[in-house]
Amino acid sequence: MAPFKFEILKKSKTSRARVGKIQTAHGVIDTPAFLAIGTQGAVKAMSPRDLNEIGAQIILANTYHLLLRPGPDLIKEAGGLHKFINWDKPILTDSGGFQVFSLAHMRKVTEDGVEFTSHVDGTKYFLTPKSVLEIQTKFDSDIMMPLDECVAYPCDKKLVKKAVERTTVWARESKKALTPDEVGEGVRVLFGIIQGGTYKDLRRESAEEIAEIDFPGYGIGGLSVGEPRNEMLAMLEVVTGVLPEDKPRHLLGVGFPADILGAVKLGADIFDCVIPTRLARHGAFLTYDGAVNLRQKKFEKDFNPIDPGCDCYACRNFTKAYIRHLFWAREILSLQLLTIHNLRFYMQMMEKLRQEILAE
Amino acid sequence: MAPFKFEILKKSKTSRARVGKIQTAHGVIDTPAFLAIGTQGAVKAMSPRDLNEIGAQIILANTYHLLLRPGPDLIKEAGGLHKFINWDKPILTDSGGFQVFSLAHMRKVTEDGVEFTSHVDGTKYFLTPKSVLEIQTKFDSDIMMPLDECVAYPCDKKLVKKAVERTTVWARESKKALTPDEVGEGVRVLFGIIQGGTYKDLRRESAEEIAEIDFPGYGIGGLSVGEPRNEMLAMLEVVTGVLPEDKPRHLLGVGFPADILGAVKLGADIFDCVIPTRLARHGAFLTYDGAVNLRQKKFEKDFNPIDPGCDCYACRNFTKAYIRHLFWAREILSLQLLTIHNLRFYMQMMEKLRQEILAE
Repeated sequence: MAPFKFEILKKSKTSRARVGKIQTAHGVIDTPAFLAIGTQGAVKAMSPRDLNEIGAQIILANTYHLLLRPGPDLIKEAGGLHKFINWDKPILTDSGGFQVFSLAHMRKVTEDGVEFTSHVDGTKYFLTPKSVLEIQTKFDSDIMMPLDECVAYPCDKKLVKKAVERTTVWARESKKALTPDEVGEGVRVLFGIIQGGTYKDLRRESAEEIAEIDFPGYGIGGLSVGEPRNEMLAMLEVVTGVLPEDKPRHLLGVGFPADILGAVKLGADIFDCVIPTRLARHGAFLTYDGAVNLRQKKFEKDFNPIDPGCDCYACRNFTKAYIRHLFWAREILSLQLLTIHNLRFYMQMMEKLRQEILAE
Repeated sequence: MAPFKFEILKKSKTSRARVGKIQTAHGVIDTPAFLAIGTQGAVKAMSPRDLNEIGAQIILANTYHLLLRPGPDLIKEAGGLHKFINWDKPILTDSGGFQVFSLAHMRKVTEDGVEFTSHVDGTKYFLTPKSVLEIQTKFDSDIMMPLDECVAYPCDKKLVKKAVERTTVWARESKKALTPDEVGEGVRVLFGIIQGGTYKDLRRESAEEIAEIDFPGYGIGGLSVGEPRNEMLAMLEVVTGVLPEDKPRHLLGVGFPADILGAVKLGADIFDCVIPTRLARHGAFLTYDGAVNLRQKKFEKDFNPIDPGCDCYACRNFTKAYIRHLFWAREILSLQLLTIHNLRFYMQMMEKLRQEILAE
């Protein structure tokens, strides 16, 4: 199996954007890249062959959800997550931290980690920097994320500072807990995560501290949690100015097309977001200008595809009128078709971004 | 476009079973055949390419549901049902009668037809023998069904007799309302429907009267509505003993694998049923012995496919443990995979039945 490797193929002359290639044990990822989210071991309404057809090179799975159900031991017994879900391309898993911190009143943070109560059956769990890596090792993820502390928006600076400090301490513990092969450019790698809320000095501090620990890639967390787009991009600019250029940067949980276009120019390489899949299940399709609600009356007799220029299965074969009918009739096929289109739209957007940078 | 034609290729030596071929304007149907149900213009959780992959040669769509939403005029404007739903193989539509009669307190039968209130928005509709054909003509269905009166089980003989008489009157009116091309072996054909509840003499009377009107094929209605299997088969035996041998017989709404195996031996050629798709959405897979609930704890760590001998996408790629996990996690993919398997199971069952008869 090929070890993890990131290579920059081209840097933009007008911005921090770059085109790259990440090599993992399960295949190559062309960057800038968008990761579809397979929360519970499946991208909602998509089969692996649908994912292959839209050009997905990697998916993200959520440690929080898979820890609760079906559990890391069962996944290990199945031969790892790739085998369990029948996806042979790369998988990135988060640490579960983001979901746990979203639980608000259902969790308790200490210096050692975070305790929380399962939303499924009320079982208590305690996550530590070490345990989240053990879990992700059982999954056999290609890219793992360390436990970090993510704050809400807006958030008092003192609390954010404390979260940054704890995130750094946990990042050091995480690196120590791994074998050298896993920390470095091994078969399975651990990224570092930058926090800092919407405070430039804290973002800089976090980026410097995490970069000093030295990881093969970096996640930028705690953005796209409610702050305005310009604030998000301002934070990203600080962070990508500090992080080493030769390592991939994952802007966690972002975003709408306009967010991604802005973030690529500031040097972000990897994105993941529920927007294309979640909005599909709400009956909307995505465009560069945002989401469009297909349930609208004006599409009732629109016998054109969602996007005549799109090459996805939905656009090649079905009209807006039909998919709208299916949505109102609560047919599962409407969710499948809208999800296929929205994810293909994101994949095409990333392809176009890469081509534009390469063509500069 | 080829006209409608039914050809018997082989008759069993030990039973009334036969292998045949129905030619329609949209392609061939090998009989005995099972029709997946695309109630609202989609087989639940299936795309047309999924249907092609499992070997579906024809689907059934429900006039009642499509009349209410999106309506026959919109479907006609889209170029007919095949084009609207992107399915280029044959489509059989029912008359809407069965659903309307199930509405019980929400409908009113007169000599001219049946009035009912939409379950979607409360609109009042009046179906007549003529109007249901106009609707199905707008759909451009390959095989149409006439308005009939279906009774509940059990039902008083006097009421069943009245329903049989009305069904015959409506069948005559239906035939009269069509152009000669549509009634005979034209591009679009109308089947007759036999009623009679669970009374042998009424079944015989109905079959004789409807056969005398002369249709290119016959639907056998009002069975599989709650009566025991042996009663259902006894009624079928009476009917197939009366109907002309050279016309296809569709046993409407049947059934479990054991029902179909029994009915084929009595000379039924076509079947449709929601069982494989509906049970999939309840987390069950089908076997010759009936349905098995995949949600059971005993499948938690079963890393084998649902059926190792099955060639469907679900069985080629996924384990029981994974599909069970997806089902408990309420993932749409579980419904897709179980539906694909259950329908492929039915298709394989029909293929095997045809092969067995041919090999006699």
